[in-house]
Amino acid sequence: MTYIGVMSYAALAEHHRRLSQLHHVEAIAVWDESTMMPVGGGAARAEALSTLRGLIHEHSTRENLADLFAVARAEAVNLPAWQQANLREMERQWVRATALPQGLVEAMSRAELQSEQAWRKHRADNDFSGFLPFFREVVRLKREVAKAWGDRLSLSPYDALLDGYEPGARSSLIQPLFARLRGFLPGLIEKVMEQQARESVRASEGPFPVERQRWLCLELLRRLGFDFNHGRLDVSHHPFCGGVPTDVRIATRYDINDYTRSLAAVLHESGHAKYEQNLPGDWLDQPIGAARSMSIHESQSLLFEMHVFRSPAFLELAGPFIEEAFSDSFGRAPEAFSPDNLFRQLTRVKPGFIRVDADEATYPCHVVLRFEIEQALIDGSLRPEEVPEAWDSWMRQMLGLSTLGNDRDGCMQDVHWPSGLFGYFPAYVLGALTAAQLFRAARAAHPNLMTQIRRGEFGVLDDWLSKKVWTQGSFLETEALVERATGSALSTEAFEQHLERRYLQRES
Amino acid sequence: MTYIGVMSYAALAEHHRRLSQLHHVEAIAVWDESTMMPVGGGAARAEALSTLRGLIHEHSTRENLADLFAVARAEAVNLPAWQQANLREMERQWVRATALPQGLVEAMSRAELQSEQAWRKHRADNDFSGFLPFFREVVRLKREVAKAWGDRLSLSPYDALLDGYEPGARSSLIQPLFARLRGFLPGLIEKVMEQQARESVRASEGPFPVERQRWLCLELLRRLGFDFNHGRLDVSHHPFCGGVPTDVRIATRYDINDYTRSLAAVLHESGHAKYEQNLPGDWLDQPIGAARSMSIHESQSLLFEMHVFRSPAFLELAGPFIEEAFSDSFGRAPEAFSPDNLFRQLTRVKPGFIRVDADEATYPCHVVLRFEIEQALIDGSLRPEEVPEAWDSWMRQMLGLSTLGNDRDGCMQDVHWPSGLFGYFPAYVLGALTAAQLFRAARAAHPNLMTQIRRGEFGVLDDWLSKKVWTQGSFLETEALVERATGSALSTEAFEQHLERRYLQRES
Repeated sequence: MTYIGVMSYAALAEHHRRLSQLHHVEAIAVWDESTMMPVGGGAARAEALSTLRGLIHEHSTRENLADLFAVARAEAVNLPAWQQANLREMERQWVRATALPQGLVEAMSRAELQSEQAWRKHRADNDFSGFLPFFREVVRLKREVAKAWGDRLSLSPYDALLDGYEPGARSSLIQPLFARLRGFLPGLIEKVMEQQARESVRASEGPFPVERQRWLCLELLRRLGFDFNHGRLDVSHHPFCGGVPTDVRIATRYDINDYTRSLAAVLHESGHAKYEQNLPGDWLDQPIGAARSMSIHESQSLLFEMHVFRSPAFLELAGPFIEEAFSDSFGRAPEAFSPDNLFRQLTRVKPGFIRVDADEATYPCHVVLRFEIEQALIDGSLRPEEVPEAWDSWMRQMLGLSTLGNDRDGCMQDVHWPSGLFGYFPAYVLGALTAAQLFRAARAAHPNLMTQIRRGEFGVLDDWLSKKVWTQGSFLETEALVERATGSALSTEAFEQHLERRYLQRES
Repeated sequence: MTYIGVMSYAALAEHHRRLSQLHHVEAIAVWDESTMMPVGGGAARAEALSTLRGLIHEHSTRENLADLFAVARAEAVNLPAWQQANLREMERQWVRATALPQGLVEAMSRAELQSEQAWRKHRADNDFSGFLPFFREVVRLKREVAKAWGDRLSLSPYDALLDGYEPGARSSLIQPLFARLRGFLPGLIEKVMEQQARESVRASEGPFPVERQRWLCLELLRRLGFDFNHGRLDVSHHPFCGGVPTDVRIATRYDINDYTRSLAAVLHESGHAKYEQNLPGDWLDQPIGAARSMSIHESQSLLFEMHVFRSPAFLELAGPFIEEAFSDSFGRAPEAFSPDNLFRQLTRVKPGFIRVDADEATYPCHVVLRFEIEQALIDGSLRPEEVPEAWDSWMRQMLGLSTLGNDRDGCMQDVHWPSGLFGYFPAYVLGALTAAQLFRAARAAHPNLMTQIRRGEFGVLDDWLSKKVWTQGSFLETEALVERATGSALSTEAFEQHLERRYLQRES
């Protein structure tokens, strides 16, 4: 029996090794599409990727897997801990992949494609009612999908969607965290804005040549320990981090008039990248070797973007590089490049319509409202046609802005819902909370961490993150990972403390 | 019966559509490996590609295909001509893929991998005897493979290998062509060298900055009608043309001291690229939509490199671009950039050891000797340990150079045999003969073709090639394609005439 169990596990591991290699090829083709592919190659690439994904899905749901899982599960007790956890992650993926009837998968995928295309057109025209029929169909099918997953996983429909991006997360755990933010943030934002109205910030004047921006990003990536033997930096319309752990591909875009945008984007992606480059090397071809979840991934990017990059310590380190990169502009107004001014410039708080342009303090408000609305859409208490009004109401309540008649910058601003991503948004804020809690723990463990950052010494931070997060892969569940790393369950406390210190007390 | 036949054909077409999409992803991953991938990504990429290829092979040999082919073949008479030809090409691939026992495929693939790795090491050490055990094993297995294919295809073992790269080619047809070249070339080369000893050639002096070389290559590619909406130009160690027809990827390397190398490489690859970009658009996902064969592909690259690029007419067109690209160097010695001087510079003939560095006149000698030796290795009349001596003997006879004790620059110079490519070399020379014959026919059809090229008007040449070659895909067999395009079977005549005119009479 033991022998069969171990054999079943070995067969499953081999199966996942092959799957991970197909995902490798997929990841490179996707990266190429965003960074290299000429426009005319798009249609054939879309078909090629769709066929590859179909094949991966076919392999992920092969009939003999049910038997292998049954035997391996029964014998799991004989396996070492990492193999046991790996089996848990394998089965998690397999249950999800096999829970939906094929017809529903295809109908959903077609509806999402059509809805995303319709969204591109109708968003440009600010035409929610034109988009509505497509949106209705996506919501209708997604509710079916959520119910099917929920039935299989014994979860509520919304939690079943959430669990797909954030294994183990439940709306009942998120609600109290978000309720706290809803209470805390509007008051903080008001106070910060009052205070910042009295601050003077000097904007640096461009142009900032793309090649110099790229040089600066590369220099800072090197300082941060990004491994160029296992990664690259390229250009794309939207910044992202892709590729595979042995070959991590960061991409950014360059704004000739504002170098801080590419810098912030690259620092953000560097967090994702360092996580990927430092996943447990022996397990990269197995589910357990993958990053833990969306929120943990986002916690790494936000830790590097918000807690490292936008700190006076890091800006002091970056100063000479920025001066060298943009000596013309620097020569005209060195005061615009002073660490103090840069810090003020990079920590301005101002409510706005667009989530992806939001600052650290207002950002969670955008997510809280999406969380509320998407839960109501999935449980059926809100109908798709009621979304613009609900959006406007939440925006007024939380950020004092109305989106009535401006759905382009309201409920139609994100690609997520049009392309069927419901349950995805919360991870952004869970990531922000986790980043704050992790960084506070790292500073507690290493009281002179900021001094080291100021000196460009990232070894201590890397070691801490590596041990607590990166090399853990998916061994622990998210909750356990955070608790073991920080000594307490995830809460809003470290995040609130961080915002108060940074934005009210102006400490780093 | 008709209905079933048509259904079988449709099922086979759908099967090949999926295969072509998997090949698309493979092509992009291979391109990425040569142009973009950081070194550290190599090991995982090799495994990913190997898994993808295994999967493609698995799909190509699926059990139900035998029945589909049996029915479709019986009913082929009801299909339109292109579908019939497509069925022929599908079956050609399938027969070859299914002819070898799995154990032999795996043993061969392992031996090739080991031999190629051993070759890299032992070539650097000029150590043929260290390489010999690996080489012996590859030859031994390749003879088995050739016999298995030969039995299945009713061909001699060597022809069975040849047919894999050059469908329809037979050594009995190649031998008289190569015998003619063996007779013709040594005398021509001697006369040309005598004559060129009296010619003065002025070398242009660098440095030629990489960015300027790239600009020049891009400008000339644009002139040549390379479609940048469906293609790119990048950098790699060795020039190549890859990607897929809707997204053709050319890569070259830049020598800071000699811009003509990148230019010649890009012009060569542009021929491959234009063929790919102009394959029959409705058939790109089917075997019949692919380029006809290695020799036809090479005929297109050589037509553009040898007959277009290295002509006084094209060099006159290119002159102003070269001047603009390298104004510093041009300013110092404009005479080095005159079309006459460039023509002489680009048509120097000099026997050398290395095939890939050879000029147009000596190149076929390198291939003829490989053809003789590889036939003898496969039919068993020459043993692997006898190769260095045979190589030396052929080199002395044809190019007056001895490679005794210099196997690094002799029989160990190419990656082909170490990695199991036997029967591949002849296509290079068949391509050169075909290029000459096609270009002569195009000039006969359009007497002022060189004037148009001088003016940068490539429309007439493109239309002719498009009609005769590019949009034919694999509809015709190679022999028929050449005969229909040029009015006669492939011979050495046009190539000989071209060499005499260009190198002895110094006409274009």
